[in-house]
Amino acid sequence: MGSNDRVITGVAAVVMLAVGIGIGVLIGWYSGPDRVDSNIESARSEADPSISEKLIELIDNNQIDSNLEFLTSEPHVAGRDRQYELAEWVRDQFVDYGFDEAKIVTYNVLLSFPSEVEGEENVVQRLVPNGEEGYDVVYESQTSEPPLDDTAVGKDVLPPFNAYSANGTVEGDLVYANYARVEDFFELEDLNITVTDKIVIARYGKIYRGDKAKFAAQFGAKGLILFSDPADYTMPGEPVYPDGLYLPNTGTQRGSCLDGNGDPLTPGYPAVESAYRYSEDRIKSLPTIPIHPIPSKDAQEFLKLMDGNEVEQSWRGGLAIDYKYGPGFAGENATDLVRMRISTANQRTDAWNVIGTIRGSVEPDRYVIIGNHRDAWAFGAIDPSSGTASMMEIARAFGQLKKDGWRPRRSIMFGSWGAEEYGLIGSNEWVEEFSKNLDNRAVAYLNLDIAVSGDFVPDFASTPNLYETIRKATKLIPDPNPGEFSEGDVKTLYDRWYKRGALEDDEPHIGDLGSGSDYAPFLQVVGVTALDYTFVHDKVNIPISPYPMYHSVYETYPLVKQYYDPEFFYHQASARVFAEIMRDLSDSRIIPLSCSDYARRIKFFLDALKTGETGQKMIAYGLSFDHLDTAADDLITAADEFEDYIQTQLDLTNILAVRDVNDKLMNFERSFIDPLGLPDRPTTRHVVFAPSSRDSYSSDKFAGIVDTMFDIDNNNDPYKWENVKEQQAAVTYALRSAAHSLMKDQLE
Amino acid sequence: MGSNDRVITGVAAVVMLAVGIGIGVLIGWYSGPDRVDSNIESARSEADPSISEKLIELIDNNQIDSNLEFLTSEPHVAGRDRQYELAEWVRDQFVDYGFDEAKIVTYNVLLSFPSEVEGEENVVQRLVPNGEEGYDVVYESQTSEPPLDDTAVGKDVLPPFNAYSANGTVEGDLVYANYARVEDFFELEDLNITVTDKIVIARYGKIYRGDKAKFAAQFGAKGLILFSDPADYTMPGEPVYPDGLYLPNTGTQRGSCLDGNGDPLTPGYPAVESAYRYSEDRIKSLPTIPIHPIPSKDAQEFLKLMDGNEVEQSWRGGLAIDYKYGPGFAGENATDLVRMRISTANQRTDAWNVIGTIRGSVEPDRYVIIGNHRDAWAFGAIDPSSGTASMMEIARAFGQLKKDGWRPRRSIMFGSWGAEEYGLIGSNEWVEEFSKNLDNRAVAYLNLDIAVSGDFVPDFASTPNLYETIRKATKLIPDPNPGEFSEGDVKTLYDRWYKRGALEDDEPHIGDLGSGSDYAPFLQVVGVTALDYTFVHDKVNIPISPYPMYHSVYETYPLVKQYYDPEFFYHQASARVFAEIMRDLSDSRIIPLSCSDYARRIKFFLDALKTGETGQKMIAYGLSFDHLDTAADDLITAADEFEDYIQTQLDLTNILAVRDVNDKLMNFERSFIDPLGLPDRPTTRHVVFAPSSRDSYSSDKFAGIVDTMFDIDNNNDPYKWENVKEQQAAVTYALRSAAHSLMKDQLE
Repeated sequence: MGSNDRVITGVAAVVMLAVGIGIGVLIGWYSGPDRVDSNIESARSEADPSISEKLIELIDNNQIDSNLEFLTSEPHVAGRDRQYELAEWVRDQFVDYGFDEAKIVTYNVLLSFPSEVEGEENVVQRLVPNGEEGYDVVYESQTSEPPLDDTAVGKDVLPPFNAYSANGTVEGDLVYANYARVEDFFELEDLNITVTDKIVIARYGKIYRGDKAKFAAQFGAKGLILFSDPADYTMPGEPVYPDGLYLPNTGTQRGSCLDGNGDPLTPGYPAVESAYRYSEDRIKSLPTIPIHPIPSKDAQEFLKLMDGNEVEQSWRGGLAIDYKYGPGFAGENATDLVRMRISTANQRTDAWNVIGTIRGSVEPDRYVIIGNHRDAWAFGAIDPSSGTASMMEIARAFGQLKKDGWRPRRSIMFGSWGAEEYGLIGSNEWVEEFSKNLDNRAVAYLNLDIAVSGDFVPDFASTPNLYETIRKATKLIPDPNPGEFSEGDVKTLYDRWYKRGALEDDEPHIGDLGSGSDYAPFLQVVGVTALDYTFVHDKVNIPISPYPMYHSVYETYPLVKQYYDPEFFYHQASARVFAEIMRDLSDSRIIPLSCSDYARRIKFFLDALKTGETGQKMIAYGLSFDHLDTAADDLITAADEFEDYIQTQLDLTNILAVRDVNDKLMNFERSFIDPLGLPDRPTTRHVVFAPSSRDSYSSDKFAGIVDTMFDIDNNNDPYKWENVKEQQAAVTYALRSAAHSLMKDQLE
Repeated sequence: MGSNDRVITGVAAVVMLAVGIGIGVLIGWYSGPDRVDSNIESARSEADPSISEKLIELIDNNQIDSNLEFLTSEPHVAGRDRQYELAEWVRDQFVDYGFDEAKIVTYNVLLSFPSEVEGEENVVQRLVPNGEEGYDVVYESQTSEPPLDDTAVGKDVLPPFNAYSANGTVEGDLVYANYARVEDFFELEDLNITVTDKIVIARYGKIYRGDKAKFAAQFGAKGLILFSDPADYTMPGEPVYPDGLYLPNTGTQRGSCLDGNGDPLTPGYPAVESAYRYSEDRIKSLPTIPIHPIPSKDAQEFLKLMDGNEVEQSWRGGLAIDYKYGPGFAGENATDLVRMRISTANQRTDAWNVIGTIRGSVEPDRYVIIGNHRDAWAFGAIDPSSGTASMMEIARAFGQLKKDGWRPRRSIMFGSWGAEEYGLIGSNEWVEEFSKNLDNRAVAYLNLDIAVSGDFVPDFASTPNLYETIRKATKLIPDPNPGEFSEGDVKTLYDRWYKRGALEDDEPHIGDLGSGSDYAPFLQVVGVTALDYTFVHDKVNIPISPYPMYHSVYETYPLVKQYYDPEFFYHQASARVFAEIMRDLSDSRIIPLSCSDYARRIKFFLDALKTGETGQKMIAYGLSFDHLDTAADDLITAADEFEDYIQTQLDLTNILAVRDVNDKLMNFERSFIDPLGLPDRPTTRHVVFAPSSRDSYSSDKFAGIVDTMFDIDNNNDPYKWENVKEQQAAVTYALRSAAHSLMKDQLE
């Protein structure tokens, strides 16, 4: 008994100990300070590493294919019924995908349409004196592009026109102005060829057509004819559509000539019902002369008759004629006239954006935004529907993840913009309407306009804080066609990019943002970090920009399916890299934006300015770069210290310290926004990256300096050099603001 | 043994159980999900309720007294040595108080100083023809204020002058223009009395003197003489200094005539080394005519001789003469001339701010800022040193709390501004330099310029989101002199305020912010919620603004000690209410700012505009208030929904949801900032509250509308009504932005 007793006692002791521990654990578990709850848990967590792979996997090439086929089944011009139907479709898709919110946001804006009344169509004519003090029309440009396959047959295609052209009829002699860049007009001046009171004929390409129109008017022309020269839109020996992807001689590039972004009637404010609208005669962004685009087959008929000297080599195009400057026609045609009859008219109409949101789980008040415009000049199979088809697939994939129980840490927002083709109107009005919220909440804007216009190499342009995030994403995306390369040579999109892109410091080059698509209002109005992207052709060996069929009726689904991306693998890769960048920005605990990369890039551009022609001229005049140099160096120091703090000192479990760091990362870009704007451009506010005043498409670095220095030798402003100094100081101020914005509030 | 054995077993069981529980508690305590740590604990905590009482208790009247005595021992004009010494003193005090950071921040700005060279002093003279084609000086205004006690004896007092006056000599006839308000000049026009090419003599008061100078120049005057009329700065039968607190007839009001805020040479940008500085001839904010202040004893000598009709009743001042319009002198003095000889010159010099910080424990990246200017025109015992003495005591009290182990949740920052008197220069340059950080981080700015200029009632002006916080604080502060009232009637500052302030909806009235002190750049450049405060005299029965000795040499420590606040109880109460407001804003988990109060106040002002003369004229012309009304109503709805969300749905343990709400509360004010600025005032950006264009000191509501409507009947701008409509739309847009800014991102 005794020993038995002892055994029992020993067992009992163990049992009691176990029971005690059990009770104790429960007490210990529930007593004491509060437990970490799921809010804290998720606020402290790093992104789930498995999501990236799932997301990439979800994005399906065939889905993009069918999206594109649907989107391009009808023309979908801004402000037209089909464009509204597509807005409804996008909204409904977002709902189906499981988005938290999806809505159509409408603005009433000024668009521009050609007359379709017979006998009123826009034309360019050649007139011959009829001997009775009148003229006979002997040649007339085509009023529509003839169908070359059955895609456009029976479809409501708008005839080629240049939006916002002045209307009316002008007659006169032609002068050939090459690409109608400001340097081309200077060259004509040097040759003593005046364009005053002449009709300028110029080829498309190199710069934004709206700038061509602006310069033509500034130099005194009374009309502008734009044509697509074979040198710029075909390759020798290569077949044209429908036998290939190059532009046939009937192909015509539509496009806007607005000088600026956003609804012309409501500059600086959204085109809502309560907006104040200027009368058109007070709007400086509207062209003052008739402008009209013609195909090369028509251009040839005019150019071949021209008088004057033969143009210099670089002005020669690809037509089988001698290019001459003019003015007017030669020989027996000397008394002929050219007439432009333009019935294009401005019209108030609605533009529809669609905004879809998946709310963030931890920081729903932070937005990562992706956007793509939905309107096209005709079928828009490349511009913009390659992007739309891809963005919708990205949306579907994110929606699927949400249905499976995941949410990004921050909100992701999808914008399907209306009326981009007219001047980034839908996005601009939305940015204006919600400028304060975007200022307070937007982490980044990712723009997907043309997703695929080639199958050679991915092409990125972004603010420099995104460089590393872009590179990181491309390394996760399988190459769309590794078979093009030696076995095993290219596995990822990054490998292709590295192999084929221009290299800079052993990394593929990333371009800078000008204007020309919907990232511009985000970057210029508010200062939202931004990115633009396209899978492009081999631009070095095929110097066509952006691609041959751009804005013509021949930009169709069959074109893409046959010649660009039959399996939609390039679309898929594009959608995947976008989705991954978006995931990274929206889901990472620390927003992956590098202020150090930004600061170093600024220093690089500053050195380029200083050592370039503009900077040398400034230094020769006696201006100093000392303040700018110091500010740029100090910015690098501040950025490096900030990144070092994140790496080595930041307590990642301190939720508000993490938020503080993320706020600084988000707000860094805002430092470059000057509320007083760039010279003569009050709503173009980014002092580091801005669209060039001489080509909206391209990016000027330090545009305030570049613009005030432009042609300074011929500038009569008594304060011209003072203006340059003022702009230097404004940039210095912005760089110092950027450094201040990273100042630590938290002592070690 | 057996039973013994059992007992032992039982004891052993209990012991084992206890041991087990002990082990279990430890296991339970340390195992499982992460514990809430001190970061989370403090982020979730509401402010310690005991701090308020401690803070109030710490603020000591005698300390303020000795601060004031020290600060006023020498004149401390902007840019002068003593002003720098005081900057060092303030910085050193901050360090002593235990601040985390204290530093002097210097800007190099354009100030203005009178010549002190004998024979060059600023004077106004009367000249009599000497019969030899020349003139003799028969009267000359005083070149300094004679000492009336020994305070100023042997001190380096600047002679009276108007800063930024043009220099040079002008001669001509006088015209009396009452207060030189725009309506006074209109009245002279109606009377067919021209001021063109005349010297205007006008009394101080009613509006900012810089606006008097602006209007005088606009209406063509070649000089402006300002004088302090007894009607505006004395009370009948009341003794003047040193026998009382009213202005003696030798007292002269100094003051700036800058038309605008901030360093004149660097508008829109901070006056740092790298700044671009305009040449003075390009600066529109600098007066173009000589301006000079004289005391009433001198004014009388000129005014008594004047020709013309007697002025209307409201134009009569308090001198024992007949006030006449002029022009020129009457009778035997008709050929006399008045000469202004002004040698005041602009001068580049340093202005010194001192910034002191106590870092927040939880959200160091959020700032509650208190500020006071340090520079005075002479001894500045009221303006600004009553505020400086009080602010330093607030700083000491917060420092003491920090030494005792407490920190506010958010950072508190103290700004001691330089060169306020010249045009809010120190604060403006600092706001410009750190505009991005303030935009991202500043919760509120509390301005303490003149803390005490009377012992009657506290007087607040603020943005409406602070109303309730102000009231709440005044209820915690003991009344400085309850003995003035029936027993028990008045216990708190609120009680006094309620009894003596104007009531509105049964609450004491809080005024609106125009300009005239350092809150203006915070509110106008960035849109930081702001407050201004003074303990004032009985303004209803003693209609002197702001107080008799304003900007004269007689504004001394003895004046304050003898006549205003012998025990410094009113200073103490002022410092306490400020400290408590600051504590509440910096320490409360939810920032105590009411968007609903703001929205309702906007609606109230909109109704006032609409039913007032301006609105009725707009409606009569055919303008509609519908959009504005709807926007204001919608803003109320959005604000109420937001506050309801905070009250009923917000999870206070969700740290990031709380941060989100606080961000929205902070950013709400930014919605009213239009980056495009008010008409012709690009850096005056608040569309709801702005300084009036006709009196910078006062607040216009919807200044864009008020300004474009001003004198519209006589305006020749062909777009005048269009401009009004444009401004209506801009306000509508801002109200809509404010409503958007409260949009919830977090679904229920």
